[in-house]
Formats: sequence, C-alpha cells, structure tokens
Amino acid sequence: MAAEPLRLADIVAALGGELCGDGQTVITRLAPLESADAGSLCFLANPRYGAQLSACLAAGVIVSPSMREAALARGPAIVAADPYLYFARLTQWWVARMRRQPVPGVHSSAVVEPGARLHPSASVAAQAYIGAGAVIGAGAVIGSHCYIGEDASVGEGTRLAVRVTLGEACRIGARGIVHSGVVIGADGFGFALDGQGDEAYWQKIEQLGAVRIGDDVEIGANTCIDRGALADTLIDEGVKLDNLIQIGHNVRIGAHSAMAGCVGIAGSAKIGRHCTAGGGAIILGHLELVDHVHITAATVITRSILKPGQYSGLFPFDDNASWEKNAATLRQLHGLRDRLRALEKKQT
Amino acid sequence: MAAEPLRLADIVAALGGELCGDGQTVITRLAPLESADAGSLCFLANPRYGAQLSACLAAGVIVSPSMREAALARGPAIVAADPYLYFARLTQWWVARMRRQPVPGVHSSAVVEPGARLHPSASVAAQAYIGAGAVIGAGAVIGSHCYIGEDASVGEGTRLAVRVTLGEACRIGARGIVHSGVVIGADGFGFALDGQGDEAYWQKIEQLGAVRIGDDVEIGANTCIDRGALADTLIDEGVKLDNLIQIGHNVRIGAHSAMAGCVGIAGSAKIGRHCTAGGGAIILGHLELVDHVHITAATVITRSILKPGQYSGLFPFDDNASWEKNAATLRQLHGLRDRLRALEKKQT
Amino acid sequence: MAAEPLRLADIVAALGGELCGDGQTVITRLAPLESADAGSLCFLANPRYGAQLSACLAAGVIVSPSMREAALARGPAIVAADPYLYFARLTQWWVARMRRQPVPGVHSSAVVEPGARLHPSASVAAQAYIGAGAVIGAGAVIGSHCYIGEDASVGEGTRLAVRVTLGEACRIGARGIVHSGVVIGADGFGFALDGQGDEAYWQKIEQLGAVRIGDDVEIGANTCIDRGALADTLIDEGVKLDNLIQIGHNVRIGAHSAMAGCVGIAGSAKIGRHCTAGGGAIILGHLELVDHVHITAATVITRSILKPGQYSGLFPFDDNASWEKNAATLRQLHGLRDRLRALEKKQT
Repeated sequence: MAAEPLRLADIVAALGGELCGDGQTVITRLAPLESADAGSLCFLANPRYGAQLSACLAAGVIVSPSMREAALARGPAIVAADPYLYFARLTQWWVARMRRQPVPGVHSSAVVEPGARLHPSASVAAQAYIGAGAVIGAGAVIGSHCYIGEDASVGEGTRLAVRVTLGEACRIGARGIVHSGVVIGADGFGFALDGQGDEAYWQKIEQLGAVRIGDDVEIGANTCIDRGALADTLIDEGVKLDNLIQIGHNVRIGAHSAMAGCVGIAGSAKIGRHCTAGGGAIILGHLELVDHVHITAATVITRSILKPGQYSGLFPFDDNASWEKNAATLRQLHGLRDRLRALEKKQT
Repeated sequence: MAAEPLRLADIVAALGGELCGDGQTVITRLAPLESADAGSLCFLANPRYGAQLSACLAAGVIVSPSMREAALARGPAIVAADPYLYFARLTQWWVARMRRQPVPGVHSSAVVEPGARLHPSASVAAQAYIGAGAVIGAGAVIGSHCYIGEDASVGEGTRLAVRVTLGEACRIGARGIVHSGVVIGADGFGFALDGQGDEAYWQKIEQLGAVRIGDDVEIGANTCIDRGALADTLIDEGVKLDNLIQIGHNVRIGAHSAMAGCVGIAGSAKIGRHCTAGGGAIILGHLELVDHVHITAATVITRSILKPGQYSGLFPFDDNASWEKNAATLRQLHGLRDRLRALEKKQT
Repeated sequence: MAAEPLRLADIVAALGGELCGDGQTVITRLAPLESADAGSLCFLANPRYGAQLSACLAAGVIVSPSMREAALARGPAIVAADPYLYFARLTQWWVARMRRQPVPGVHSSAVVEPGARLHPSASVAAQAYIGAGAVIGAGAVIGSHCYIGEDASVGEGTRLAVRVTLGEACRIGARGIVHSGVVIGADGFGFALDGQGDEAYWQKIEQLGAVRIGDDVEIGANTCIDRGALADTLIDEGVKLDNLIQIGHNVRIGAHSAMAGCVGIAGSAKIGRHCTAGGGAIILGHLELVDHVHITAATVITRSILKPGQYSGLFPFDDNASWEKNAATLRQLHGLRDRLRALEKKQT
C-alpha cells in the first residue's frame, strides 16, 4: 500500500473538480471529518455538517459550490457539484493506485479440473476449486477456498473474495464483486406435497435452472441466490446486494436495483429496475414490482406494486409498556371500528 | 448431461399417468409453459393458467383430468391426478437419469484423519476434511471444502454440497441434502450474567450437546443449526429448511415440517410435525407449537400454539404517506380506545 | 473426552458453593433435569421447576439457598447463590478438563504466506490460509478452511472455528470465539448514485477502513461484520453476537452488549454498553443507543434511544382470520381517529 506522495493537484488532474488553494498540499489518507489529521482529505456531502468544517484539521476538503466560501476560509479544497459522488470516484481511484493486484496464475494448492478454461491474466488463489468446463475471464480473481462449479463462468475483471460458491452452470458477468460466503446456485426451495394429513411428506422438485448475473453486480457476504426450477434466476446489470440476503428461485431483479442487508425475496418475484429495499424487507413470491419502487426497511410486500413510489409497513417501536398497551388494543381493532360505527349511527 | 432420445411413452412407463396422443414424441427438456419449445415437456398445475395452453409450443403437457380435453386439442399429453406432484417425481427421475454421479473415493487434496470410517462407495471431494472417528455412509457425497468433525456421522446417500460444516459428534441420517455454507453444530447462544449493572459481563455456558438430524432432511444454503446446551438439538425426518435459517440450541422440529428462508427459531422451541413457517417468521424460545400449525411469513410467535391452524401477524404495507399516518396513530391506539369508551358511556 | 472419575467434592473444591450430602458421589455427565440419570449433575435455576426435583434421578443438583431443603430431601446437592451462573462456570471447567486441545503448529495442508507471524503455541488446522503480515497470538486456534487476510491479527487464546474469514488488516483480541462461516471485513455497503432517473447507476465507495474487535468477544455462525468506509467498525470487549447477524460498516457496539440471532444493525449505528437485542431486531443506520438499552425481538429501531430501558415494536400474532380483520382496519386507523374526533366534537 505504498506510493509516491500524492498532491491535491494530482487528484483534480485525475478526477476533475475545481482546485481551490495550494495544489501541492500532500494527501496521505482519506478520512472522516471528525478524525482528520494534517494529511487527510475529507468530503462534506451534507451542508448540515458545515459547522464541523472550521474545526477540521484536514489537509483538504471536498465541498459543494454552496460551501466554497466556508471551505476556503479553512484551507485547500476541491469544489465539486456532488461531493459524495466525487468522493466515491476518489476512493476507486485511490484503491486502484494503492491496492496490490493479485498475481495472475493458479496457486499451487488450488485444484483446477481438466477442461476448465482460465484466461492467462486471471488469478486463482490458494485452495480454490475450478470445475470442468468452467470459464474464468481476463483479469478475474478467484479467492481462496472458492468453488466454481462445472460449466460455470466468471466474467472479465470480476473478483470473488474468499469461499464463494458459484454452482454448476451459473454465470456472472464482468466487473462484478462477490464477497465471502456467497452461495450462488444452491437449489431453490421447491417441494410437492405427497399424501395428506399426518401421512403427507415432501417430494423434492429438482431444480434444473441456473443463475445468470449481469455485469457490474456486487453481492454481499453470505448472501444466497438460488438456481431456478426450470428457467434461470436473473440478476440484471448493476444490481447491488448487501449481506445475508436471500434470493429465491426464478426471481428476477432489474438493472441497478439495490437491496440492503437481510432482505428476503421469495421465489418468482419480479423486481423492476432502479428499485431499492431497506434492511430486513421481505418480498413474497410471484409478485411484480415495477421500476422505481422503494421499500422501507423491515416492510413485508404481500402483493404486486404497479406504481413507482415509496412503500412502508413497519410497526413503530415504543417503550415496552406503551407498546404492550397499544399492541393489545390492536388485537381488538376491528371490534373498535364496529363500536365506532355504532356510535356514529346513533348520532345520525 | 447427455442421454438417448427420451420419448413421452418412456416417462409414462416409468412414472405412470395416462398417455394421450403420440407416445413417440421426443422430449429434450422440461420447461415452463411460457418458454416451452418443440422439445419441451410442461406441466399445468393450476387451471387458471389454462388459457396459456393453446398457445404453448411444447411437445407435451402434463395436466389434470379436468384439463384433458383442452390438452388433447393442443397435442400429446400426460393426464395425472396431481400434475404438480407428477412433475416433482418427473424432475427426480430426470435428474437420476441425467446427472453425472460423483466418483466414489477420496480426492487427493482432501484430508481424512486416521480413524474416520468411509464406506467404499462414498465420495469425498477436493479439499474436504474428515475428522477422526467420523462415519460416512454408503453412497454419501461430501462436497469440496466440507468439514466433518470428529465422531460426526453422515447417513447413506446423503449429499453435502460445498463447504458444509458438520460439527463434532453431530449426525445426519440417510438421503439428506445439505447445501453450501450450512453450519451444523456451532455453539448455541448461552451465557449467564456475572455481576450487575455497569460491572456485569457474560459467562459462557459451554454447549455440551450435539445436533441429530433424521432421514430425508434438506437444509438450505447458509442455514445454521446450533448444538444443544446439554441435550441435543433435534431435526426429525423429512424436515425441509430453506436458506439462511437460524435454529437455536435444543430446538426440536417435528417430522415433515418445512420452513421458508430467513426463519429464526430461538432456543428450546418445540415445533410439531407437519408445520410450516413462511419467510422471515420468528418463533421465540421455550415455546411449543402442536402439529399442523402454519405460520405466515414475517410473523413473530411469542407464545405457544396449542391448536392447529394458520397464524399471522404482519404489518400491512401501504404507500409511505398512508403508512406514516396510520403508524403514528397506532402509537396512540390505547388512548383512542379509552376515548371511545368514554363516548360510549356518555351515550348510555 | 475420557478422564478420571469425577466426584461432587472435586467440583466444589474447584468452583466453590456449599457441598450438601455425599461428596464422593461420582458425576459422569452434566444433564438437564428431565433426562438426568444416576451419573448426572443438574442445575435448577428457576424455583418454578422445583416440582421436578423430587422425581429427578440425578446424582446431584445445583440449587439456590431457597431450594436447599427440597434438594437435600432428594439427595446430594451443591447450594450456590446463583445456580445458573454456577452452572455456566461448571461447563467451562468441565470442558477445560475434557476437551482435547489442538496440537500447536501448522497442518501440512495449510498455506502460510511468508511474513506471517505465528506464535509457536498457536495451531493452524488443515487447509487454512494465513496471509502475509498476519499475526497469530499465543495459543490461538485457526480452524480448517479459515482465511486470515494480509496484516490481520488474532489475539492470544482466540479460537476460530471452521472457514472463518478475517479480512485484510482486521483484528480480533484475546480469548475470542468465532464460529463457522463468519465473515469479518467484507466491504461495507456504500454507493453513490451517478446520474438520474432511468440513467442512474451506482458508483462504489471503496471501503478503506477495517474491523477491530476487542477481547472476550464471541461471534455466531455465518454472522457478518463489515469493514468501515474510512474509519473502522468497532466491536468492544465482551460483546456476544449470535448467528446470522449483520453488522454494517462503521457500527460501534459497546462492551458487554449481546445480540440474538438474525439481528441487523445498519451502517454507523452506535450501540452502547450492556445493551441487548432480541432475535430479528433491526437497528437502522446513523442512530445512537445509550448504555443499557434492551430491544425486544423483531423490533425495528428507527431513531436514537437516549434513555435506558426496554423498547418494543412487534405486531402481535393472532389466528389468521382475526389478524386479517385487524390488519385491514389498521390501514384505516388514521381515518378512525378522525371519525372519533368528529364524534367527540359533536358531544361537546
């Protein structure tokens, strides 16, 4: 992680924005405002935190045009239309410059089956396994303990962290990032009931589809995406999934949708493009959400949503005693409505 | 996945049902109605989708007796009392015919400790680990990167996918399927508080029990089943668990119960036979659910259920503005009840 | 797991408490009251279960002073102020006596990169991977298939079970326990939106922080703790996390707090000391919970809590028909309030 001294002017040369103050200012790290030191570059996305600016010890700050005066009063700055987005690009540029690249080739402890096709610039780390017929693209990185099933494929530049499972015949596109513990292509949960009552038992429906994932998709740690029953489960380009998410068989998630941690999406749900779901939200199966639908955290979607917008359904928390009284009353709510109606009738 | 051409009559010969139309029709794949081609065999479980039948390009369809006429008007068909169940059996037969069987024996990169007993027909894949005293039954398949702890046992024909952890002394029966990332036998969450107030800290209760799993159990990706504190955690025969489920220590799940993704069952809960729980449901600890209890998705079970039936408790979602108003009012619900009472009193 | 015969007096000599009855009573196992046999030692923490005492076949029981007479009427006993805590310590002592200790050293199938520093008393199991610059403390145990990233560190006596990922530069203190499938140090979920409407897509914010975990922390199976965006994610000493928990980037959890399974804590939430959260609770991002806040299972915390206490917000379950009526009415609740107001106005 060592590099030559980096100056504010170098950043502006690479990423644009307006340089204000001394471009020779040396930047040694990116830091949050509250813990910045004399080598730090910070960003201020929210004018609400403007008060922190004057006290900040940073070498430089990235601000919006509206904060220009306040920033210049403090010291060197980069003025950018969208400081948060500028900062995102800066972190990418920073990492590309600093992060050691994996060495192309296959670690001696990895197992690569005959018939797998690895691009010479791909990297396969210690104790990884690559099945027969698998295809690993140029510059792809397969981390330690990863498992790439038979006939699976990993696109150009995609990085699999540690112990990722990419099941048989499953495919992920280019420039993806898959974090540790992800399971792509486990069987979907499909059973038919055989018999009745106390004699009933479950007959497995073998899952014959696969998972197809587009380009520029990121998948968080320990998230699961099941293979389809007959057709494939589909994750379109640019989708971002956080950790510990469950995606059932034959789900389709449209491009550039993003799901926070612990979300569950049941089988055959069809999510549009540019949708989001907050942490712990659940979307039941066989539903459709159109583009630009936003689900609040912990909300359970029980029917299709055909109109863009924000949807919510979480129980407001309270101190335990208040909650207990309200929750108990909630169980009589329908009766309260009837009593209210009766009163209204008497009035008229 | 290659095989001789398969004809409709072969399927009926193997699985029963009534053959209608040309038994020599060649079937090359199983497909959903909406994407069937001239080599596809489809099933129609729900008469509601009957309208799709006439437009369907499939080589053949599996239908119920009530759809016989409509199906025959289209082309070859198999008539079965329960098309969905027929289809389930067909997928099993299809996979048994098509899927390559793992080669018996131990991959050279696997580690098998002295004292483990492997049936000669069992298969141990690359980089798996088998502890001392472990027993692997006939035809069992231990996938890559699996870990079988000391004295653990895997029954006949059970298949562990990739990187499954089966902890020390834990046992799974015959014909099971365990998907990637499952952890069986991690410590249950047990602590005693030592000290009080700001000085309190947690003393670990070592977990001395194990996990015992019956025959014909399927466990989804990244699901966790904790070992018992003193006695064992018990999963009875025929239970089906989806992905990312948490089963606490000393839980017992009765035979043929099924749980959808992201369910959590806290310690010492006792679930009956033939129960189901929808995705994200939570069952608190030390409760009992009798047989044939069905829990709706995202419902939280806070006390025992002694009567079979369907139980629910999820907050209905709404557009965000409506939800906000209703949720705010919900926090005053007990007060509303009191005001309603007061009005009622005035009336009398 | 074999050892010399153990007598009741040995336990009291080691752990204190008052010995009542024959100290030479041989103890062969620790057992729950309901399945105790003539070699079992049991504990009775809750006087409610006192009725089980007389029927219990155990060799000995651990009881509180209030149960002394009832226990002595039955047979040998240990009287302790807090039988549950006594039992916790007993399980620890029992395991220390019985459990085989891992052999120090590195298994031949493990990969240790040059520049890693392993204490000679540490143990590295089969197929583990230790990155360059990693530091493994005295007596630490690295389980099979674990991955210790570059420059990561594991404190003295800390035990990592199977396939734990400890990411680059992440640190865990002394005497920790990390269960199978845990992922420490995957990227936090951070993106900036680039473009608008149908053209928008997500720009990754590279996560430059790490995870720092204190001493005496236990982390349950398949739990994820993300690395910070700029600063580190912090888990303080004595924290206990159950299975399948999601901890977002830059969260801080104060000392001796405990979280049950399936909890989700979003980015930058700051949890105090001695807090608890029940299973499936969700804490949204950028919130603060002061010390001694207790969150009921399945509750969603949507704003900061500045006063110690118990907080709840879960929908009470009911039989499905009752729930349906109440839930439907809930969606009109705000309207009901208005109608009630109107009635009240008429009255005055």
